[in-house]
Parts: sequence; structure tokens; C-alpha cells
Amino acid sequence: MTKWKDVKKVVLAYSGGLDTSIILKWLQTELGAEVVTFTADLGQGVDDLEPARRKAEMMGAKEIYVEDVREEFVSDFVFPMFRANAVYEGTYLLGTSIARPLISKHLVDIARETGADAVAHGATGKGNDQVRFELAAYALNPDIKVIAPWRDWAFKSRTELLDFAEKHQIPIAKDKRNEAPFSVDANLLHSSSEGKVLEDTWEEPPEYVHQRTVSPMDAPDKVTEITIGFQKGDAVSIDGKRLSPATLLAALNDLGRDNGIGRLDLVENRFVGMKSRGVYETPGGTILLAAHRAIESITLDRGAAHLKDDIMPRYAELIYNGFWYAPEREMLQALIDKSQEDVEGDVRLKLYKGNVIVTGRRSPKSLYRNDLVTFEDDRGAYDQKDAEGFIRLNGLRLRTLAARNRGE
Amino acid sequence: MTKWKDVKKVVLAYSGGLDTSIILKWLQTELGAEVVTFTADLGQGVDDLEPARRKAEMMGAKEIYVEDVREEFVSDFVFPMFRANAVYEGTYLLGTSIARPLISKHLVDIARETGADAVAHGATGKGNDQVRFELAAYALNPDIKVIAPWRDWAFKSRTELLDFAEKHQIPIAKDKRNEAPFSVDANLLHSSSEGKVLEDTWEEPPEYVHQRTVSPMDAPDKVTEITIGFQKGDAVSIDGKRLSPATLLAALNDLGRDNGIGRLDLVENRFVGMKSRGVYETPGGTILLAAHRAIESITLDRGAAHLKDDIMPRYAELIYNGFWYAPEREMLQALIDKSQEDVEGDVRLKLYKGNVIVTGRRSPKSLYRNDLVTFEDDRGAYDQKDAEGFIRLNGLRLRTLAARNRGE
Amino acid sequence: MTKWKDVKKVVLAYSGGLDTSIILKWLQTELGAEVVTFTADLGQGVDDLEPARRKAEMMGAKEIYVEDVREEFVSDFVFPMFRANAVYEGTYLLGTSIARPLISKHLVDIARETGADAVAHGATGKGNDQVRFELAAYALNPDIKVIAPWRDWAFKSRTELLDFAEKHQIPIAKDKRNEAPFSVDANLLHSSSEGKVLEDTWEEPPEYVHQRTVSPMDAPDKVTEITIGFQKGDAVSIDGKRLSPATLLAALNDLGRDNGIGRLDLVENRFVGMKSRGVYETPGGTILLAAHRAIESITLDRGAAHLKDDIMPRYAELIYNGFWYAPEREMLQALIDKSQEDVEGDVRLKLYKGNVIVTGRRSPKSLYRNDLVTFEDDRGAYDQKDAEGFIRLNGLRLRTLAARNRGE
Amino acid sequence: MTKWKDVKKVVLAYSGGLDTSIILKWLQTELGAEVVTFTADLGQGVDDLEPARRKAEMMGAKEIYVEDVREEFVSDFVFPMFRANAVYEGTYLLGTSIARPLISKHLVDIARETGADAVAHGATGKGNDQVRFELAAYALNPDIKVIAPWRDWAFKSRTELLDFAEKHQIPIAKDKRNEAPFSVDANLLHSSSEGKVLEDTWEEPPEYVHQRTVSPMDAPDKVTEITIGFQKGDAVSIDGKRLSPATLLAALNDLGRDNGIGRLDLVENRFVGMKSRGVYETPGGTILLAAHRAIESITLDRGAAHLKDDIMPRYAELIYNGFWYAPEREMLQALIDKSQEDVEGDVRLKLYKGNVIVTGRRSPKSLYRNDLVTFEDDRGAYDQKDAEGFIRLNGLRLRTLAARNRGE
Repeated sequence: MTKWKDVKKVVLAYSGGLDTSIILKWLQTELGAEVVTFTADLGQGVDDLEPARRKAEMMGAKEIYVEDVREEFVSDFVFPMFRANAVYEGTYLLGTSIARPLISKHLVDIARETGADAVAHGATGKGNDQVRFELAAYALNPDIKVIAPWRDWAFKSRTELLDFAEKHQIPIAKDKRNEAPFSVDANLLHSSSEGKVLEDTWEEPPEYVHQRTVSPMDAPDKVTEITIGFQKGDAVSIDGKRLSPATLLAALNDLGRDNGIGRLDLVENRFVGMKSRGVYETPGGTILLAAHRAIESITLDRGAAHLKDDIMPRYAELIYNGFWYAPEREMLQALIDKSQEDVEGDVRLKLYKGNVIVTGRRSPKSLYRNDLVTFEDDRGAYDQKDAEGFIRLNGLRLRTLAARNRGE
Repeated sequence: MTKWKDVKKVVLAYSGGLDTSIILKWLQTELGAEVVTFTADLGQGVDDLEPARRKAEMMGAKEIYVEDVREEFVSDFVFPMFRANAVYEGTYLLGTSIARPLISKHLVDIARETGADAVAHGATGKGNDQVRFELAAYALNPDIKVIAPWRDWAFKSRTELLDFAEKHQIPIAKDKRNEAPFSVDANLLHSSSEGKVLEDTWEEPPEYVHQRTVSPMDAPDKVTEITIGFQKGDAVSIDGKRLSPATLLAALNDLGRDNGIGRLDLVENRFVGMKSRGVYETPGGTILLAAHRAIESITLDRGAAHLKDDIMPRYAELIYNGFWYAPEREMLQALIDKSQEDVEGDVRLKLYKGNVIVTGRRSPKSLYRNDLVTFEDDRGAYDQKDAEGFIRLNGLRLRTLAARNRGE
Repeated sequence: MTKWKDVKKVVLAYSGGLDTSIILKWLQTELGAEVVTFTADLGQGVDDLEPARRKAEMMGAKEIYVEDVREEFVSDFVFPMFRANAVYEGTYLLGTSIARPLISKHLVDIARETGADAVAHGATGKGNDQVRFELAAYALNPDIKVIAPWRDWAFKSRTELLDFAEKHQIPIAKDKRNEAPFSVDANLLHSSSEGKVLEDTWEEPPEYVHQRTVSPMDAPDKVTEITIGFQKGDAVSIDGKRLSPATLLAALNDLGRDNGIGRLDLVENRFVGMKSRGVYETPGGTILLAAHRAIESITLDRGAAHLKDDIMPRYAELIYNGFWYAPEREMLQALIDKSQEDVEGDVRLKLYKGNVIVTGRRSPKSLYRNDLVTFEDDRGAYDQKDAEGFIRLNGLRLRTLAARNRGE
Repeated sequence: MTKWKDVKKVVLAYSGGLDTSIILKWLQTELGAEVVTFTADLGQGVDDLEPARRKAEMMGAKEIYVEDVREEFVSDFVFPMFRANAVYEGTYLLGTSIARPLISKHLVDIARETGADAVAHGATGKGNDQVRFELAAYALNPDIKVIAPWRDWAFKSRTELLDFAEKHQIPIAKDKRNEAPFSVDANLLHSSSEGKVLEDTWEEPPEYVHQRTVSPMDAPDKVTEITIGFQKGDAVSIDGKRLSPATLLAALNDLGRDNGIGRLDLVENRFVGMKSRGVYETPGGTILLAAHRAIESITLDRGAAHLKDDIMPRYAELIYNGFWYAPEREMLQALIDKSQEDVEGDVRLKLYKGNVIVTGRRSPKSLYRNDLVTFEDDRGAYDQKDAEGFIRLNGLRLRTLAARNRGE
């Protein structure tokens, strides 16, 4: 390929599946490049990455990286994002978006270690993921080349793709033969399904597209009560038991899955300009968001909380659009992290058939003061007379305006 | 009372209950003022306002206004607010906040009609409602006097208050005798409970504080499916049946109540400076918000939608703080309303044990285009090659920055 | 050109200069398309558009549109933008940005009238103007094709371009022969210079790059005093004399030019990702901005004014980036226009050697109330006691926080 | 005074002038409190603080603190604020606002050291300064009492005030006798004048109200050229000479004063609800702001710069309103400071009769890349073809919208 003719060595984000195996081969044959593979355990639900390693070996990958990045994923990406209560377009918890910069970071690091001049990913030319992979890579290495084979290759149909695979002896699972492309993504935070049966926004998603939760209707008819402990804005324990970030999120996922929590069927606006419909499942994240908001409700000052709410949509948009490594995201993170120093304490929740119900929150750093708010005698903590001046001065400009408007 | 010595006639927001009856009498005896009462049906769940009228008569009110303002409430206050998807501090649907400016508007109108020089309300000096009542009144009539007896009178305890009532032959219901003040508010959008048993943020609210919903656990184990129709951003029909605004919201309330939808237990930041804990129930509003977001998801352009999300917290804060009649709220409303012209179509939802599950949305004005998004052949609707330039230019500044940062 | 092989008829934004003449010819010869020319008087300082008409005729343009759009430009674009006090990156008054959507609107209108299937412009592939032209065109006609010859043609150097001109007998002014491309833009609001001698950000711009102002150092050493009248946020008169929008702006330009007002030397961030350095002159606009802020200072409520300030950078960015016809710009405009209803009155200014000095402002709609602010006896307009409650409640959350932070 | 009957010892912000001397005496006689004085050199232009010390001694102050806080003022308050390019309501550089929290901090510190239970200030009940003093004090010590004698004492006129002074043998300068209260404030950043002759917004301020600048008309008719050096967003040198923060600002003040720079005549919106008119002079600050924006223009990424611009009005409002020590200001500061790490280099400016003209900027950390922006051959740094895809995807949603809107 003329376009990539100078590329000698590529680091490929490699899942071991059919599509990225085709890409691996295509990079070797069409570009004549050496390929380094990177396969990560992001908590996508694949227990064993050894088959991917063996497949990469078999296909002639020059160097093979297989890594468990689950703790890094949760500590350095998921938790910082949850400190912001980030939600895109009012509903989406950014489960796919947040994993992309991590993968790019590893690709770029491996490129440096192995002397590769390019990285490659398996995202299509219609989605957000290409943007996220590539912006992250550019921000981390301005000279890196990023190859997106789906945008470049000449295959015109699924059939041509499979023919290429067959020709190069890439094993094709039986059930893949007749399947149209169908996008699924998964990691420790969420799984998503897009395309095919979901493309009619009026049709209800069939039950089988769900990958990691039972339906609220099928969840047990009993309440599960848990307590999540927080420190500096991050969850650190469940029911008093300290857990590492990834272990904690995995435990919340189990609790969410069993109780039908975290399903979402939405139509979202992609950065590349069109609307798309997706079914997302974020069981643990949904619980975590509710709990984080609850612990903030007693430990965060109003000014801090409202500033966070005001900038949140922008922060979420930056992550959605792939600007994790942009300075404005880092500036907002500095603002957010500054607010979390005293966000600590416990939140008690009931999980029940799709519901996450906060039933209590407590903290050594609580700003809730019963003596101020009580209807009972407050022993002078609050002077109701102050309210009169407060209201009068807040209203002064409105009165001035009203007088002006009636012609005074 | 020296402070109000010039006041001759007061319009009182009068519920017919014990507290506002005491206020009525206090205004007559302490201020020597004539009292005009205003009793409104806001959908608070009192079927008959006639007892309030008779009580006002009996207590010597000079003029008595009793009005059903439910349609006005929903058309001019609730629906405009829902066009904004307004939520305060991430969770509260502003059910109490939005009713206050309507009441003040009527008080001020009646004051003009009756030649009264003051209005009075029964909100305490610790809460937000005093602010909302008074800012609205000042904005509508800069010369109006607003009397908040709870801030002014000399009663030091519930007992003194009840003694005053007894002395003036105000009937006291038996169960009121030993009760400490306990704040309940209700209207067609929501009901709220604050104080007493709720003052410990770690304690779960007892089931009996809930006024208008069954618990998710007690809701029937079957799905109710409904379709809500929208025009210009407002709900206009349920299951194809056109309903007036108030009738529609009432019907959604019934559906929400039966299915355990819309309960909220939160700690919020009051405008007057302290945190308070409340239990809110907004059954119909919770359904409406989910449906409105869903119809917007296919009919609103991304730029419009994100701008709305960015300004929403500010808009919600303005309503919460009592600035409904401030010019900045009206400016934001102009912005929001401008976006709603084509927000029309249907949303189908499943209601089930506390869950509101969007299962479909369709619109003659839909911006969702399957030809753009499909994984199938899109017949040229979208050129994947465009994505490369899009990403490269979005990334240009990040690459420039990265090069600078490594010293180039 | 394969890419544009279906194009039959193109409407070209035609200045009559060398570059757009080359484009005209290139469209005819390379695309084999009929060309319709559109030449507009935007106030760029060309007194007579007839030469452009004759040149277009001579070069075989099929249909020729020549229009004076100055009033439309100021009424529908410049004035709405000035209502917002729009300034990009703290300094740039958006003089080039605001003209582009107007030109695109005319191109698209003419395309509809003449049955053309494409429009073409002379902006290069590195700048913002291509984006502005094209986004506006797409927003007004989703099917229009937009041809940007600078991005498409094969010319590799200025020499090749001139050879093409010579070959097609396009007259080349003598002094153009050896000149590298140099970008100048001008309209009634401003003129700009970019490139060449300006490309070193440390070098001071030579005096000769300035096109429409004298230097402050060369301006007369005497003060010119003027009064600008406003109605609904727009300037309507100078020294009591009512003027049409374009006439008024032209008069301010003359005043600014003579007094050395409105020069700007900046480095800005382009939407396409790089920084560029420009020298801009906006003599009348600079006066207008100062006057508009001054009349707002006495007629706009604080809440309205601060909301405007908060959204201004976003509004300016939208215009800079070419999103004039995007719904979010229109929503912000609705918000802004809502605020301007009572922005009326007079502002008196001194113009002197680069300075615009506001010396007075008055309005029948003034919100300035001397009785409130005076240090003299205010006869009860303001009760200083109110301030105590106001401060105490504003400080309540800070005191709660401080107590928490020291461990109470 | 009953209200302050428990107060035993007060720390007073003491200038040595008539008004704060009256307050000192009033605190002693009316409250029966011991008074500790704090007199600071903030750069207000008083060369010698010893007279204030002696006067405090003479009047029986128990403990006397006199401190030069100029370096602290510029380092910890002025410079952090200038990193944000903070401007209130488009024009005001916050010169008074930023000094108040520093004074409160010292008052509270001294109260702790001396065991005082209250602090006192000389601001009136109509202005912003009372709010700034008191909010800062409350944020630093939740139990501190703040006494604002102007709100509390019984004096009804200037005459009564002076009678009290005379009775207590407080020396009254001759020219003070017949003077109405007139508010002047000054520190190293600015000076302000309010009241009296300025109360008519249409009247031009008389020349004599200006305290620290010559008029542009009176400034010399020659250009002064300077170069300011920056590191981490702060000015560190003038013409290559390193200066401490306060020394540098003082030098800029001299340059500004001589060249007629930094005068401002405005009508602003006070936090307490009314508009007021002021004449401000910020000679050095005006130069500094222009220079800081210029150095940012080449060293700050677009995303960072635009985020800063978007949050700036809010940041400025917080400082104006007195919320320097609020968590939201500190969060915004964290965001701003994060952006300034590479804001370094030189800015060259011409100062001339009121003008501050940036003529050059350079930096080892510059993000300006001539190879990207040049009209000359860029040797492949930028591919103009990328722009097409960039524009097409940015326009995709607009085209979709346009097609929808015409009924497709």
C-alpha cells in the first residue's frame, strides 16, 4: 500500500478473534510490515489469553505482548472518571470510551520498546473508537503512524474479507460464516451491543443481545443490601472488606448482574456526526455512580458540587470524543481531584430488580449538620432573621428591574 | 408589630391547615391587618377545597380566593421545566421548587385586585421556600411587602403556637397536639417529606413517610407498557389518547405510583446554606423525564443537545434557588424552547417495580439515519475516508503539543 | 476531475481578482462545468463592482450576480453578533468569520435559482474559511456540493498557477508576478493580513500591512467626542443622527480609522488545528463593542449580564469555527436577543490616538439607581442591616466547611 | 452593644485614617473591648506606616501589628488571579476585590495569636467589601465574630460621626470637616474612586479623581518599548531584569502611570444587588493582562485556552463576590495553574498614550509552527486533503438536520 509504504513494524491491538487476525495478516501481506501484537485483559470476560498468544505466534507475529491491565484500567481511568460522575448525554456511563486511551497508551509504549513506527487498531471508519485510539496515540507520540485497516483496505463485503481469511488459513469459527458484522465491546466496566437487530430505534432489543446482566424481570425477588466505603472519592471497600480497584468493580458487577442492574438502551450522538443506537450494560458502574453521588452529597460543599455538575457534561464529552490525553481533560481532572480530598465514608444501598436504592450515607467528614436544619430547637445554630436580609439583597436587583419595567 | 405597622391588607397563601390558620389569626391580631386568603388546588391531593373556604370565612377572612390551578401549573411551569431535563444536584426533579413561583404570582395578582399591600406565606426561615416565594413576589411587584410570620413571631415552641391557636379557637386535630413540626409538601408533580425521622442521614426512611407511591418491592410483578406522544417538547398523549397537561401528568402519576416509580432519598444543598435530607416522590415526573430524553435522543441535533446539557445544571439551580422570574431564567428558557420545535414523536416504555425502561422511540422528525450508521453496505451515505482527515485535524494540536513537550 | 465528474453547474464566489479568475477558468476547463459568478459588495473597499462583472463576462461566466449586501451583512450578521459582545480568544472581533455564512447563503440561494449543483470558493485548505463556507452551505442545502479548488487542483507552486493563468489569457497585474500567496480579507467590519512578513511571531508587523487605520502614533493629537444611540441592543444613531446599520458602521470605521483605533496583532488558534498570526483592523467594531458594553452596563440586569458573559466564549467559538447556521448558535442567539429588549440609550465616547474612552451613558431604561448606591442619605432605599443576613447565609456553608476541616 | 456583648478583644483593620480611628474608639467605648490593630502596606502608596502605629498607640490599642505584605499580595493573590486573565463584567481587573481576602487572612491569624474573639473592618453596609472581608474570615475561622461598625453604630450623619471623633480627641484633618463620605481604595494593583461627583453615570469623571495615572492626552508623545519575561504563567522580568513579584508590579505601575495606561470608567453590578459607578486605575495590571494573554497565545494549546476562557467569568465573579477561600475558587485555581506550566517566554510591548500594543512574543515552549501555517511550501507538514474529511464530518449532523427540516 503506497500510503503506508514506509512502515516497517506495526504494533497491533490484537484480540485473537477473526477480525484482528485478518488485520494481522493484512498488515504482513499488504504492507510487508512486521507485526507486534498486544493483547490485554481489560476484564472483557475472556478467562485465558493464552489462545490469543498462540494464535499470534502461529500467524508469525514478531513479538507478542499479553498483559493483564485490569487494575491499571480501574485505578487510572475508571475511578478518575467516576470522581466526576461523568455521564454522556444524560445516560451513558462511557464504558467503551474510557478503555480506548489505555489501549493506545500500551500500543505506543510497546512501539517505543520494539522500535515500531506504527500502531494499528480494528475499529471501523464510522465509529468513535477510531477517533479515540488515534487521538490518544497522537497525543502520546506525535510521530506515530496509526493504521486503521477498516478504512484502508479494498474489501468490499464480508465475503471478500472471509475469502481473504480462508486464503491465508485463518481459522473461521462456524457461526461466523454467515454473520454480518456486528459490534460488541466489553471490558470490566461495561459491555455494549450495536448494529443489526438494534438498528430500528422503535424495536425493543431482544433479550439475547444482553451479555452480562439478567433482566430486572428475571432478577430474584429479594433485596440485596450492601455498604460501599469511599476514600478520596474512590470506592475502597464493600461491606467493610477492603478490595483492590479491579476486584471491587468486579464484585459490583456480580452484584449488579444478579440484580438486573445497569441496562441501558439509548440513541447517542457520535463524534463523527451521526446518531447510533446501542444497548449497554454497566452493572457495577451503575451502582458505583449512585453510591459516589450519595457520599458526595454529605461530604462535598455546595459550591464544589455545583461546579462539578456544571463542568461534568463537558468532561464527559471530552472522554466520549477521545480527548483523554488533551490538556483540557487534564485541567478538568485537576479541578475534580481537588474536590475529592474529603469524599470519604460509607453508603448503604439496596439492590433490587434493576433498582439501586440509597438508604443511608455517613462520614467522619460529613458537612450535614442536623443542628442547622432541624425543625426542632437548634440552640442558636441558625438565626432565621438572617434569611430576611439574605432574601432582600438577592431580590434587590429583581425589584429594581421590576420597577424599571413598569416605567419607574 | 412595628415592622409591619403600615400593612393594612394581606393576601395569605392559605391551605386551611393548622399552621396557616394560626398565621391568618396572627396577621389579624398582631398586625391588625385585613386578610385575604388564597387557596389553590395544585394537585396536592386534597379533593375538596370547600372546607378551606369555610374555615377562612369562619376566621374572618375579608376576601376568599379558591382556585384550581392544576392546568396552569403543568402548562406554564412543569412542562417548560421538563423541556430542559432539569435535575438539581443530579437527582432532584424540583417538584417543590417549581410550584412556588406560581403561588406567588397568584398572591401578587390578588393583592393588586384587592388593593392589598402585602402577601404572606407559611414557609419557615430555614428553608428554600421562603426565598422562592419572596423573590418571585419581588420580581412581580417591587413594592409588595412579603410577610413570613415564622421569621417574625415571638412563639418559642410548638406549645406556645398551639396555645395561641387554642386561645383563638382554631380547631386542632387530635393527632397534632404532640407532634413536632414536620414538613410535607405536595403538588401534582411530587410530594416531599423532611425532618424528624429523616434527620439522621444514615437511617433508612421508614416506609410510612412515603405518600404517593408503593415501594418497588410491593409493586406488582408484571410489566406495564405505555407509549407517550410528544409535540414541541411536551407530552401530549398516552397510548395515543390526547390528554390535557394536568390530566396527562395525573395519569402518569397513577402509573408511577402503582409501579413503585419515582422515589428518591437524598441529601441536598439548600440555597440558605445548609444540607438537608429529604424523601421525594415524583412518579409521573420520573417517567416523563426518561421519555423526554428519549424523544430528544432522536429528534435533537447533537449541538443542540449538548448545549442543553451544559446549561441544564444552571437552569435547575435557578429554579431551585427561586429565580423563576429572573431574566437569566427567561433567557435560558428562550434557548431551551428554541430547541424544542421538532421534538415530537412517540416513546414506548416499560414500567416495572421501580424501573422506567425505554424500549423504543420514533418520530416523523427523526434525525437517526440508519444508512449512515449501518454496518451493512450504506450505499455511499458515509465515506469512511472522511474520518481520516477528521481525526488528523482534530489531532493536529495534540501532536504539536506532544512534540513541544518532548522538546522539539 | 473524477471527483467532481457529475457537476454540471457551479456558483463561484468571485472577487474579480486573479485567484478567483483562475478558479473560474479551472472549473470550466478541468470540470467542464458551467460557472455562475457571485460578486458581492460587503464593504471590502472596492467602489465599483462593474469591472468584476465585465471580467466574468469576458471569461464566459454563464450567469453573473453582482450584489450590494452591506445592509444585510450588518443587520443580519454583524449586529446580532455584537449583541453578544463576541470576542474570540479574548481579543479577536470575528471580522472575517462573520462574513462567510452570508456569502454561502447567497451562493446556495443562487444555486437554487440557477439550477446549479455545486458552489465553489477560493479559500485554501489550511484556513478556517473553507470550514465556514462549507459548513454554512451544508446547513442550508444538504445536497449541495462544495468545491474548494485550492484543495483539489494539481498546481504545485505559484509559478504553475500563474502559468495556467497565462495560458488561459487571464490578465495578471504586474506586481502579482513575483508575489507569494498572501492572504488579505476585508469587509465592512474589518480587514486582516496574514502570512509572509507576519509569520515570525516575534517580529513587529511593518506599518504597510495595515489597510484601514492610521497608527495611534500618527493619529491627530486631539480628541473626537461622539455619542452613539442604541435601541434593542443595536446602534441606531451617531450624535443623534439616525443611520442605517451599514451607514452607521461605515461612519464608525471612518472615525476609528482617523483616530488609530482597532488594530490588533495576535496569534490565534485555528479550528483546523494550528496557530496562526494575523494583523486585524476593526476600527468601527472596536468602538461599537465598547459602546455596547457601556449601554448594557446600565440597562442589563446582573443575572442577564453574567449569563451573557458566561456563554460568550462559546458563542464566539461557534462563529469562529463556522457554525453560524448550527442550531446551538441559533439557540444562543435566542438567549442573547431575549436580553436586549431594553438595551437602549446613549453612550458618549472620546476617541483619541487608539483609545476608546467611555465618558458617559444614560438610558430611559437605566437600572442604575443613585438612591441605592449613594454614600449620602438614601432615605431608606437600602437597609444596611440586610447585608448582615445576606453575608451570614452566604457564609454558612463556608463556616460549616471550615469547622469540618479542623475536625469538628 | 448587646449584640456584641460577649466580645472581649477585637482585631481591627486599621489604616490610621479618620474613619478607622473612629472605629477603634467606638469598639473601645461602645463594646468595651480591647482593640488590636493591623496596619498593612499593600502598596496603597503610603510610604511610612509609623504614623499609623503611633496613632494606634496613642489611642490605646493593646497590641499593634504593622506589616509590609506587598510581596505576599502579589505572589499569592494578584499573580494567581492574572493566570486566569480574570476580568469582571468584561472590563474590571478586580483590583479591590483581590486585596480583601489577604487582609482577612491576617486579621484571623492575628486573632488567633492574640486570643481575640472578633475582627472588625471599616467597610460600609452597601458595598462588596464587607462581603469579601466577612466571607474570607468565616472561611478561615468558623467561630470568628466579624464586626462591621458601619452597619451597627447609631451615627445618623457625617456630623454625628465627627462629633464623636472630636469628643474623643481624634484629630480631624482640616479638609475632612465638610467632606461627605467618599470612597477611595488603593493597593499595589489599583486604585478606585466611587461616589459623589461620579454618581451621575452621564457625567464625565473630573480629571482630579484620578490618583495614579496621567491622562492619555497628557502622556508623552513618544513610545516606550518593554519586554516582559514569563515563567509558569507569572511575570518574572522586565527587559531581561529579574524582579520580585511586588517590585515587578510596581515597575509596571510606573510605566503605566507615565503612559496614561489603565484608566477605566464603568458601571458595575455589586454582589449586594445594585449598580455602582467607579473610576479605576490599574496601570501595571493592564499591561500585565495584555502581556499574559500574548504569551499564552503561543504557549497554550487551544483546548486549554478555550477552557480557561469559558470558566474565566465564573472565576472572576467568585473573586468579585468574596469567595476567594471557597472550594470552588480553589478548584478553578487548580485547573488554571495546571495550564500554566509551560507558559513561559517573552512579550514585547509598546506603551503609548493609553495604548498597550503587543508587537512580539517568543518562547522556547512555543506551539506556533510556521511550517503548518505557511502559505509557502510546507514540505508535507500539513495535508490539505485532511481538511475535506474534517469539514465533511463536522458538517454531517448539519446536513442530516437540513434534510430533516425540508421534510426528507
